[in-house]
Amino acid sequence: MQHTWADRFASRASGLVSSEVRSLFSVASDPAYVNLAGGSPDVGALALEEIAELTRHVVATRGAEALQYGTGQGAPELREQIPVVMAEEGISASPDEIIVTTGSQQALDLVCKVFIDPGDVIIAEAPSYVGALATFRAYEADVVHVDQDADGIVPDLLAATLASLQATRRTPKLLYVIPNFQNPSGSTLAGARRREIVRIADRFGVMIVEDNPYGLISFDTDPLPALKELNPDGVVYLGSFSKIFSAGLRMGWAAAPPPVLEKLICASESSVLSPSMYSQLTVSSYLAGNNLTRQVKAFREIYRDKRDAMMLALADYLPEVRVNRPAGGFFTWLTLPDGIDSKGMLAEAMAAHVVYTPGTGFYADGRGHSNIRLSYSSPTPENIRAGIERLAGVVRHE
Amino acid sequence: MQHTWADRFASRASGLVSSEVRSLFSVASDPAYVNLAGGSPDVGALALEEIAELTRHVVATRGAEALQYGTGQGAPELREQIPVVMAEEGISASPDEIIVTTGSQQALDLVCKVFIDPGDVIIAEAPSYVGALATFRAYEADVVHVDQDADGIVPDLLAATLASLQATRRTPKLLYVIPNFQNPSGSTLAGARRREIVRIADRFGVMIVEDNPYGLISFDTDPLPALKELNPDGVVYLGSFSKIFSAGLRMGWAAAPPPVLEKLICASESSVLSPSMYSQLTVSSYLAGNNLTRQVKAFREIYRDKRDAMMLALADYLPEVRVNRPAGGFFTWLTLPDGIDSKGMLAEAMAAHVVYTPGTGFYADGRGHSNIRLSYSSPTPENIRAGIERLAGVVRHE
Repeated sequence: MQHTWADRFASRASGLVSSEVRSLFSVASDPAYVNLAGGSPDVGALALEEIAELTRHVVATRGAEALQYGTGQGAPELREQIPVVMAEEGISASPDEIIVTTGSQQALDLVCKVFIDPGDVIIAEAPSYVGALATFRAYEADVVHVDQDADGIVPDLLAATLASLQATRRTPKLLYVIPNFQNPSGSTLAGARRREIVRIADRFGVMIVEDNPYGLISFDTDPLPALKELNPDGVVYLGSFSKIFSAGLRMGWAAAPPPVLEKLICASESSVLSPSMYSQLTVSSYLAGNNLTRQVKAFREIYRDKRDAMMLALADYLPEVRVNRPAGGFFTWLTLPDGIDSKGMLAEAMAAHVVYTPGTGFYADGRGHSNIRLSYSSPTPENIRAGIERLAGVVRHE
Repeated sequence: MQHTWADRFASRASGLVSSEVRSLFSVASDPAYVNLAGGSPDVGALALEEIAELTRHVVATRGAEALQYGTGQGAPELREQIPVVMAEEGISASPDEIIVTTGSQQALDLVCKVFIDPGDVIIAEAPSYVGALATFRAYEADVVHVDQDADGIVPDLLAATLASLQATRRTPKLLYVIPNFQNPSGSTLAGARRREIVRIADRFGVMIVEDNPYGLISFDTDPLPALKELNPDGVVYLGSFSKIFSAGLRMGWAAAPPPVLEKLICASESSVLSPSMYSQLTVSSYLAGNNLTRQVKAFREIYRDKRDAMMLALADYLPEVRVNRPAGGFFTWLTLPDGIDSKGMLAEAMAAHVVYTPGTGFYADGRGHSNIRLSYSSPTPENIRAGIERLAGVVRHE
């Protein structure tokens, strides 16, 4: 008997589909293209020889731990150090409320595992992170978007959306927010709005998931108060070492109120047993060497220059396009003139050897056809300028 | 408003509970105890200085890859090498059918994500791996056990169970089998039975999940044909580097038929984005250096000596207890005399400074009270003998 097995798949499997963005990554390494689509960190900014020596030292001196199973919650020493990293943004946390995860993507997966039954509502900014939408889809959640502007998600619209859901007896389980230098919009949630958002979520009894991978990659501004800081019992905070150290280690974390944390730990144990001790002790050793402050400073300067190069090129070559100017992070968001479809235009852009991410992937409700996400994190300033010039030619042709 | 959040948890959260085994691990590092409970590899057998230098070299020469995001399916070079590892047991596989995972535990989680809706039936050996039962519980599966004997799962019982489920219109989605040196029983599925099991599963249209972390850790016997080898289209094969190299890297894999593989990749992307490039290139470099054959030989000798020490001590101190003699792997399985409850006896054992795992954790149906899993992987032969002597005192006292 020959099976395709599709008739045996779980109901959620229909939502396990290839990301629109995935195919774009295949050209990421082809130097003929300017890749404004990905969101890969600039690993050229890392001191590879130093990290190599640190790695050798970890295995030579602590190999019996680094190469062994760890515990589900994560190595105590790394959980001691993570609050110090969070304190750089003025966020307080205790080692006891932290779980180390296989990147913050796993933390998001675990939060869904603990909270989301099929059909449950998750509120997300419009637009929102494509990888989060994929996770929500895998848990068969119903994503309801709330619009944002240049100051982030709009509190009145959030309150109205929650009230209207309540009227139909649908209480959202989670409010997913990326408050700093949002992926994909580049927007930052304004300080006054943060207090309002937290108050509204608390009033409706909705857990906030605060995803903050880019907070330390700030160019022009001091940190604004974290949502977790404003209501520690009502927020699951997600952090990541991918943008401030290395994405290849797959190291992130969540900080959560005790009853949630306990479930996250059990969920992680049933998913991966424990996070990698090899990666954990590498990060821990890196932090112990006081390398982070210097590294973050270097990353900020590199990405600020790239942001500036992109903004200048956009002003020079595409003055008719509405652009969001990010104060940190990796991304900016374009709104094209009426009548241009960003997804349809991609084939022509690829023919012109420039790639971007169409806006549609960042909405769960079919919007985004007139939008583009551009990333400046990976190409050089010169390539960014060349890429925007190519893109302008394509837009003008449309 | 103060929440405990428990009223917002998903239905599956009630199954996300702390493993019975977890608390035992807390004494794992206390030298006053002989720990026969865990299943940690003996990392003392690893050449730490060599691995440290290899690690340094990976980061120094390929840091831009090792510290960067990878792809969901895993690094092509590692997927080329994994079939060579599988060939050591006579199993054929192609790089295209492989997905690299964060330990084989994640592979099992992903298989459940693709196949299991709440209430779906999974067939598992009785007893079965406690970590797999935790994953099945997290997906709200209904585990139906089929008994095994010293030759593994009994084909006639499997066929009868499947027929009786079919009669009530319940077709199991998965048949979970650990054919070699099973955790916890130590049994190996006999060669003739393998053909029968594959035939029966195929007849009833049940996907087999073949979990084989211990296959290369064989003491006395040549490898028997893998279930995957007998029916490539009907088996998802799970492999692991945890027992043949390092558990701390969290590196495992699955080999699956194409339509299943495509879903596993999407499921992995939504769970962790990609497996760690840092760990992947470390394993790849280790394999490229032809270290595996030598390392496996060393592990086999170490664990064979420990198995022998445990068997001798059991014969000397506990001749009245029924013991399964494993031909490989990490575990043996005891059946205590009538009237002794292995879970109740644990407190007394801990007072005598020896710990083991009660049998109850390895059943989804409440059995196992007269059973004990003993692991010989971690303690020295001398400690194993001392531990069994202590355990005998406790059993006799009961």
